[in-house]
Amino acid sequence: MRHVLSARVENKPGVLQRITGLISRRGFNIESLSVGPTQDPAWSCLVAVVEADNISYEQITKQLNKLVSVLTVTDLTKKDPIEHELVLFKINAEPDKLAEITQITSVFNASIVDVGKKRLTIEAVGDAATLERLQGLLDAYGIVEVVRSGRVATARNPV
Amino acid sequence: MRHVLSARVENKPGVLQRITGLISRRGFNIESLSVGPTQDPAWSCLVAVVEADNISYEQITKQLNKLVSVLTVTDLTKKDPIEHELVLFKINAEPDKLAEITQITSVFNASIVDVGKKRLTIEAVGDAATLERLQGLLDAYGIVEVVRSGRVATARNPV
Repeated sequence: MRHVLSARVENKPGVLQRITGLISRRGFNIESLSVGPTQDPAWSCLVAVVEADNISYEQITKQLNKLVSVLTVTDLTKKDPIEHELVLFKINAEPDKLAEITQITSVFNASIVDVGKKRLTIEAVGDAATLERLQGLLDAYGIVEVVRSGRVATARNPV
Repeated sequence: MRHVLSARVENKPGVLQRITGLISRRGFNIESLSVGPTQDPAWSCLVAVVEADNISYEQITKQLNKLVSVLTVTDLTKKDPIEHELVLFKINAEPDKLAEITQITSVFNASIVDVGKKRLTIEAVGDAATLERLQGLLDAYGIVEVVRSGRVATARNPV
């Protein structure tokens, strides 16, 4: 099962290694990982997407909770989280294709962030399914590079 | 000095641990890290922002290049890269503040992605400086949570 794990961890050398080590020692692959600063410079926020059965996943979170460098661990999977990703697509396209590509990107609320002589770069934000559809369309031009942020997730606000 | 490192790495358990280990063994902190799938499921794309002097940074990239699981390592720092981040801000705001906040978000090309009774979530994409200005404005409402994707970066296209 796919789990979306969100954790607040110390912003210090070695912390990331301990966390990725703890997960991979059990043979689980981290499908996507994003780590960035929070409003407090002493802490980072980490979001990881891990494929693991429920029992193993519980063991992972228990062990994470034991680490001094880990403040909180939340399993967002069951909370219907907002789960978005930022992607940069670099594609083969000469400037005469710009009008056509602009129409595609506007449907996906994406934008062209850089244009060169033979290539351009598109930036898109959304859920995994939407981004995959966009990638499918851009494939026709020849995708040179895909850079994805990894999942950024948070629980929805109570109403 | 701040370095933006981009690498294509094998999408396998343990690879991330080896990479974060290699960096943190030298005592360098990973300020931000994002790892996600590429167009080829066998490979992941990794972008890390590391604070290190030039000599140490060169040693890090040399050692990364030696790893079998690492296909390419690029130092984007000198290439004037496109460097964007995705951020979710959860703030304290009741629905009567919606109009005011919508105006702020529209200036920053950000959007409100979730509204609850007492809180709302804003999604923004941009460079670090822009996102910090937005965060400064949202601070007035009370920021409950900040989830950042870590830097997503790619070299500009030749013109």
